[in-house]
Amino acid sequence: MPESQHYLDHAATAPIRQCAVDAWVDTARLLNPGGQYASGRLARAALEAAREQIAHALGCEPIEVIFTSSSTESCNIAVQGLWRAGGRGRIVSTPIEHPAVAETVTALVKEGAGLELLPVGTDGVVAPDSRLDTRSSLVTCMWANNETGVIQPVAEICARAADTGSPVHIDATQVVGHLPVDFAALGATTLAAGAHKFGGPRGTGILIARRSPTPVPVLFGGGQERGIRPGTANVAGAVATAAALTEAVSELSVATARITELRDRLQTGILDRVDDVLVHGAGADRLPRHLHLSFPGAEGDSLIMLLDNAGIACSTGSACSAGVNRASGVLLAMGVSEHDARGAVRFTLGSTNTEADVDRVLEVIGDVVSRARLAGMA
Amino acid sequence: MPESQHYLDHAATAPIRQCAVDAWVDTARLLNPGGQYASGRLARAALEAAREQIAHALGCEPIEVIFTSSSTESCNIAVQGLWRAGGRGRIVSTPIEHPAVAETVTALVKEGAGLELLPVGTDGVVAPDSRLDTRSSLVTCMWANNETGVIQPVAEICARAADTGSPVHIDATQVVGHLPVDFAALGATTLAAGAHKFGGPRGTGILIARRSPTPVPVLFGGGQERGIRPGTANVAGAVATAAALTEAVSELSVATARITELRDRLQTGILDRVDDVLVHGAGADRLPRHLHLSFPGAEGDSLIMLLDNAGIACSTGSACSAGVNRASGVLLAMGVSEHDARGAVRFTLGSTNTEADVDRVLEVIGDVVSRARLAGMA
Repeated sequence: MPESQHYLDHAATAPIRQCAVDAWVDTARLLNPGGQYASGRLARAALEAAREQIAHALGCEPIEVIFTSSSTESCNIAVQGLWRAGGRGRIVSTPIEHPAVAETVTALVKEGAGLELLPVGTDGVVAPDSRLDTRSSLVTCMWANNETGVIQPVAEICARAADTGSPVHIDATQVVGHLPVDFAALGATTLAAGAHKFGGPRGTGILIARRSPTPVPVLFGGGQERGIRPGTANVAGAVATAAALTEAVSELSVATARITELRDRLQTGILDRVDDVLVHGAGADRLPRHLHLSFPGAEGDSLIMLLDNAGIACSTGSACSAGVNRASGVLLAMGVSEHDARGAVRFTLGSTNTEADVDRVLEVIGDVVSRARLAGMA
Repeated sequence: MPESQHYLDHAATAPIRQCAVDAWVDTARLLNPGGQYASGRLARAALEAAREQIAHALGCEPIEVIFTSSSTESCNIAVQGLWRAGGRGRIVSTPIEHPAVAETVTALVKEGAGLELLPVGTDGVVAPDSRLDTRSSLVTCMWANNETGVIQPVAEICARAADTGSPVHIDATQVVGHLPVDFAALGATTLAAGAHKFGGPRGTGILIARRSPTPVPVLFGGGQERGIRPGTANVAGAVATAAALTEAVSELSVATARITELRDRLQTGILDRVDDVLVHGAGADRLPRHLHLSFPGAEGDSLIMLLDNAGIACSTGSACSAGVNRASGVLLAMGVSEHDARGAVRFTLGSTNTEADVDRVLEVIGDVVSRARLAGMA
């Protein structure tokens, strides 16, 4: 059972919040918000109330909230759509984007996009540079990295892009519900989030999109969601997402303090118990819940397997889908050697964790790393 | 409350089945099926069990089942993706496709696709003709029309397309859960369905896709779902969809008989009570639940409003998103005059309907049509 495990992979998926389950069940019977009749109007009212709640939580206008099926879809609409709307010219991105952005940019390069990548430091922080001083069809940067949790200088990137009139997409998948977000103050053109990263349901994403420029749609159909994202609206998904986000934002300062303390205790405890450990992004501002480490000489996959065997759920951080086994491109971009990058493990904490989860890791980590290093020498 | 209405718009959205709500609640806490740990394996097992159930219900292999967010997305992946994989040449389609296909085809025409439309008869049936006798990059036809419910000769279209090696997409949104479907026997390349049309949750769609040719992806990211559709899997949505489809298929023969009888009584009763009524698709095989009528001299929107006022929820059938008010392109393609097409109303019945719903329509329809016709003369 999931509950019996020590779940330390919250950055992959946060367990759904009870308020989101309740909101979904309460609204699952609502009908089509496109219907021109009483039950259609009820569904529409619920959908629009969810949109207003999300706008309130993220500092934007309700009309700027577009419901999608995932942050991956939100990033695709923004990156493909803004680039096509913006003249199909140069893209400025970073070497540490999630595949939802990186693979989409790669597809656009095949369509003729020019691509320039901002440099990233050994601390995992992207450096805004002169590439931002001429107009681009698209500038795209994640707010915080999914592997290291390192927070990026998105405010500066948005400001410099605005100076040249370049549209900017911010992938805020790891940030929404975990740091304060004020879309209007940020000045981005679009911002993406996925509900299941903050305790909402899977299958629901958010794209915040300013009224202009409008992304060229990726999917075509019935004209819903300002014509940007067609398909019958997922009312229950939207309402559950709004409930989860509202709760996450209301708990933010308390949760941040509690999770930072757990994470710091986990980090200190591991460093006390294991020799030769790298803490990725330690020199930068990180999200409270992230602890990304390398244990050189061990293989990440072996570490994950041994930890799983001890009842601890975590990941290497770089495999979004099953079966991928290679050194993280994010770590390589930060100057980590391939040898060290292959020994990476990501622990990400969340609202369900307690001291007991940290204790369990500290209890087994020494033995786990020793065994994985022995296996790595074989 | 939705329950207090006489809901006759099942082709837009079917009320969610209790088994789907229960399945969703039972699995909403499952975590990321990409996780390489115990709770990830549990989630993966639930996802794959849902895939097997759906394959069993639709006569395909589990590997051919791709989970998406909607039938609109499924149609986009198939139409865009097969056309791009198939040489970006000619598309053969029909003039009566849903916007999920029609608008996607229009977008591809802007990318350089040639387009030829099969003719449609006054009975609403598409005529396979010599356009199918040379190879196309894509042939696409809906299995049954969303407005009229008229069933199309998809088996013949698939067979003739196969003779030329052309990939075929079948939009089965109105059919899955309502007619028997055997994907292997049909011989299509891809087939699309949306869960909320058969009592599954909103936000979940199905694309059945043969192993080859593989559609070029529309969205890019983590490589889930055979690389065709990225994003963290919506496990609870998939399980709820499988539950709803399994129940719908198990009830099919009984439900078909019951709903056909209700629909036929509704049709006869309206024709008895109102003069000058057109029944669209009356001369063709129709889905059991569809009754698409025109009341010439009345405006469809006025009829919908007056029926809503009498507690009856139905639609014109052609407006997928709110606020659209124009004659149906489907009816115009069938040779219906614009005057007659503007008086169209679609009643679609479903598992929640009883004699009482039919009685209520018959009680008010004479007065409603008289008033709408008077308003139309003003």
